[in-house]
Amino acid sequence: MSEAEQCLIPQQIIGGGSTPAVVVFISTVALALYLLQEKTQFVYHLFLWIEYLTSSIPALEIEMTPAEASDDGVKGEPCKVMDLVDESNPGVINCYDPSTRQLLGQVKNMTAEEVHEILVKAKKAQTEWSKTTFAQRRMVLRTIQKYVCEHVEDICRVSSRESGKPMVDAVLGEVTTTCEKIRTICEWGELWLRPDYRPTGLMLMHKSAWLEYVPLGVIVAIAPWNYPFHNSINHVISGLMAGNAVVGKVSEHASWSSTYYGNIIKKALEVNGHNPDIVATVTGMAAAGQALCSDPLVDKIIFTGSTPIGRKVMESASKNLTPVILELGGKDAMVIRQDCKLEEVVPWVMRGCYQNSGQNCVGVERVLVYESLHDKFVECVVPKVKAIRQGIPLKVCGSDGKVDCGSLIMPSQMDIVQALVDDAVKKGATLHCGGMKKADMDGQFFMPTVLSGVTAEMKIFHEEVFGPIMTIIKVPNDSDEECVRMVNNCAFGLGSSIFTADAAKGLAIGRQFRTGMLTVNDYASNYLVQSLPFGGCKESGFGRFAGIEGLRALCLERSICVDRIPGIKTSIPSCIDFPIDGEKGYPFTEALIQLFYNESLVSKIKGIIGLIKNG
Amino acid sequence: MSEAEQCLIPQQIIGGGSTPAVVVFISTVALALYLLQEKTQFVYHLFLWIEYLTSSIPALEIEMTPAEASDDGVKGEPCKVMDLVDESNPGVINCYDPSTRQLLGQVKNMTAEEVHEILVKAKKAQTEWSKTTFAQRRMVLRTIQKYVCEHVEDICRVSSRESGKPMVDAVLGEVTTTCEKIRTICEWGELWLRPDYRPTGLMLMHKSAWLEYVPLGVIVAIAPWNYPFHNSINHVISGLMAGNAVVGKVSEHASWSSTYYGNIIKKALEVNGHNPDIVATVTGMAAAGQALCSDPLVDKIIFTGSTPIGRKVMESASKNLTPVILELGGKDAMVIRQDCKLEEVVPWVMRGCYQNSGQNCVGVERVLVYESLHDKFVECVVPKVKAIRQGIPLKVCGSDGKVDCGSLIMPSQMDIVQALVDDAVKKGATLHCGGMKKADMDGQFFMPTVLSGVTAEMKIFHEEVFGPIMTIIKVPNDSDEECVRMVNNCAFGLGSSIFTADAAKGLAIGRQFRTGMLTVNDYASNYLVQSLPFGGCKESGFGRFAGIEGLRALCLERSICVDRIPGIKTSIPSCIDFPIDGEKGYPFTEALIQLFYNESLVSKIKGIIGLIKNG
Repeated sequence: MSEAEQCLIPQQIIGGGSTPAVVVFISTVALALYLLQEKTQFVYHLFLWIEYLTSSIPALEIEMTPAEASDDGVKGEPCKVMDLVDESNPGVINCYDPSTRQLLGQVKNMTAEEVHEILVKAKKAQTEWSKTTFAQRRMVLRTIQKYVCEHVEDICRVSSRESGKPMVDAVLGEVTTTCEKIRTICEWGELWLRPDYRPTGLMLMHKSAWLEYVPLGVIVAIAPWNYPFHNSINHVISGLMAGNAVVGKVSEHASWSSTYYGNIIKKALEVNGHNPDIVATVTGMAAAGQALCSDPLVDKIIFTGSTPIGRKVMESASKNLTPVILELGGKDAMVIRQDCKLEEVVPWVMRGCYQNSGQNCVGVERVLVYESLHDKFVECVVPKVKAIRQGIPLKVCGSDGKVDCGSLIMPSQMDIVQALVDDAVKKGATLHCGGMKKADMDGQFFMPTVLSGVTAEMKIFHEEVFGPIMTIIKVPNDSDEECVRMVNNCAFGLGSSIFTADAAKGLAIGRQFRTGMLTVNDYASNYLVQSLPFGGCKESGFGRFAGIEGLRALCLERSICVDRIPGIKTSIPSCIDFPIDGEKGYPFTEALIQLFYNESLVSKIKGIIGLIKNG
Repeated sequence: MSEAEQCLIPQQIIGGGSTPAVVVFISTVALALYLLQEKTQFVYHLFLWIEYLTSSIPALEIEMTPAEASDDGVKGEPCKVMDLVDESNPGVINCYDPSTRQLLGQVKNMTAEEVHEILVKAKKAQTEWSKTTFAQRRMVLRTIQKYVCEHVEDICRVSSRESGKPMVDAVLGEVTTTCEKIRTICEWGELWLRPDYRPTGLMLMHKSAWLEYVPLGVIVAIAPWNYPFHNSINHVISGLMAGNAVVGKVSEHASWSSTYYGNIIKKALEVNGHNPDIVATVTGMAAAGQALCSDPLVDKIIFTGSTPIGRKVMESASKNLTPVILELGGKDAMVIRQDCKLEEVVPWVMRGCYQNSGQNCVGVERVLVYESLHDKFVECVVPKVKAIRQGIPLKVCGSDGKVDCGSLIMPSQMDIVQALVDDAVKKGATLHCGGMKKADMDGQFFMPTVLSGVTAEMKIFHEEVFGPIMTIIKVPNDSDEECVRMVNNCAFGLGSSIFTADAAKGLAIGRQFRTGMLTVNDYASNYLVQSLPFGGCKESGFGRFAGIEGLRALCLERSICVDRIPGIKTSIPSCIDFPIDGEKGYPFTEALIQLFYNESLVSKIKGIIGLIKNG
């Protein structure tokens, strides 16, 4: 720069006497920005915002049948017998509304060959899909999200029809969870799947090492019947984001809605120019599920369902060494300590026990109330349960749709619940209300029930109920230790919650529960934190879906190690290259050990000498 | 502060005119320090250094039998038949040196009851161990490390005796790997097991959510015979760090050394005041392994071995829903592109094929050489392989111990290798050297072999050899696409490596290999990066050991969600509390969806209005 040019620059800018201050100031700002980036990934988020603001999401047009489109779109009398498959027509499954016993329609009862064909198509489509960008995958998910937001009522109605659940249960359990999952995966998924660099240690400091997340292939998701919408789309969201094909198997007790729900996903793929074969739904009986679990085209199985079937799935998967994630039963405890305010805690207990008629894997199956609060708790809760309005959730068959509690879905569940209640009563439990089928209804309504005085001798203490039963267990002497013992006296280990005025103490107690999930002064909020993994231990299964862990579990995790600096290569020292130097080979390698791993300084020096002498 | 006091503070310190500069300077330093902490965890490392420098590691005194203590400590003639169990004495297993066929000694052939007893003790001991601090766990590992560093030769000799491997193979494969694992776990383990906080999203911004890593319980590690020392201690290192008990099952073909190796761990526990039952070794035949896999006391199984047995392990584990990590066979490819310098690459090929006589899960089972380099490669490599000195690795039975290649361990492996070589030759492969048992030796020596012209029609292209065979496959037309296709034409998917002058291209090609691990211009270095997980896909199994993933896989991952700010609790909005408001309940929850998940601003505003109207 010439002197003349220098003169053109105002003295304030180049600093003069205050140069250090300016430099320090600039470096502070740079550091602060860097830190902000590290902590919030704002550059990533900035690009994400730009992507969101500059792209327009296509709208989907999905035709609905009359039965799907309106509350009273289903015609016909309640069926006496609800057979899933007629001997005369084994190719289809009959679908019923469990709250009205009306026939909703039929779906295919797929054969093993049909299942395999679906997998072949999915595998083929996945090759293309695995090459899509994260932005393309997000666009498909946002297309689904847009449709869902604009059709909340349709989605809830179809779910309600299929499962007999109230609309509020549907919007909370089906739609909110799904929307939060899509939001989380769209916001964080790409970051979670970026390569993860690892420290290489002193000996390999010239190496660069990282883990990358490669699409796994075809994911099979076998879903239960309790949340027909969320269960059918849950693993599609993460599976697609990770670059996989997803083949879902819906329960034979909740297959009717899969046509409508499946169409949403297929259309969202099509409208964005992708092959809709990437996502498919299998409808069928156990044989179809068995075919899925033992097909060598499957790269991973996520099974959500009962513990006995979980065992069979794992056994079937062992033939092809297919990895499995098992989300099985639960017997979640909700602990109410003596310091709780009843008005604060009772709504949570009610939601935990009666949301979706208790048909939740993380449903509150055991309410452990500390002794000094126990009687007041029972007194407070019983009238509230008696006030629950149970009935047909849609405005149909004479119902006004204003109900708090719906029906059970699986016919045999009625008998299971009844048997567990009867056993408890026989062994001394107090039945405060409910305890039987609602006699004046056609549908599968088990009355909201409160049982107190439940002990470990009763089956209901240990076995999963999956029904609208509040099982109250007294914690003697307000003893925290006894509480922990009682919670852990259980074959399952899915979730747990504890309510107390002393949150720190609650956390300390809760961390002694042998469960995969824990909330303090809340119930199930962890499922709305979709960055957290979901899953349990013991008979509740293993592996995790959702969260970082759940997304990465749908990838082939590949460890990579390369040279860090161009030109600097690793070579095998000549004394241990074949043919090995008989004199120097062994002492050289031993010297390496002394240098790098012996903590003693003297030994390290000896190691260096050994390397020089033998190298 | 009074005016008089203010006068006592020198003007320079409170800043006067330069206050902003000082503030900016201090904040820069603070920020830089914070950043340094974020990037290097220097506070953590500082405390670690202090721990290392201020603690003294106890020395272990372990008695060795004459057979363990010296090269020629074993007396007796070579055995004609090497029966593991005599019918007359089914309670013990006979152990042989495969290079001399001498009887080394006997170990217990444990019954299912004995196995269960060991598990009961381990489970009990684990309750205490799970309460130890990370510093205590590190001290046990450092005690082992110290002993290992000071007894490298003893450890290698015992391994060599047990498995017939040269001392250099032992120090590289047994000791270096173990020391690096201990070093890595001691340095990083605590950090990797700290709670991991997760973003909670807008709707639950008042919540704090994290994942914590809870000791899992009793880990069972079933180990193969190829690296008796490393395999028996590998999962003990990570298992102990994660707070678990570890029960290992060693192979019936390499049980003799488990007494000495097991003692090192037991003594390291004892000398630091811990119950040695936390770590135990099961010796026995398949029945003992079966007992381990089906015992309900086991919380996780890590199986390393063959694919057929892996299937059985998974099937057995399905009964108790025990999660499994399966590290099974491999058929790793090493790719040599046409631009390689032979003098640089040949040492790696030799190490990959003949290290440990090829008995490595990540052994190089297929050498894919690009066509234009192929003939030169064969020309270069054959004389080198012919020069390999094969023999008894210890100075015993007339050997001077200066050998490059030892014996095979499992007797039946001799026939497996022979059959694969014969099949290849029969189908047109060229046998350049070796190809048969070393006739002049008693021990199980299969001669170092080079086969070229190997094609996909031969069994050896697909089946794991696990012997000292270099299988050379020509990549036609130097085609990268064809190379990828050939590498992936394989039932296994463990590791892979590629050598090329163009490292970036090598990485791009290698990332198309369907394997769990990849190195460019290097072989197996990834296993010395113990922060990386180890494992494969397809018939190579699933799950990962080592690295962050491997350590966390030995924990119960527990998701926790609590209130972030004291006093701010989550409550259920009254309109959806039971009994649900028939008018407002549904529209309120739908409005929530619109506010949080509909991307349209208009819908968000409608959502807010809906919340106000119905809330």
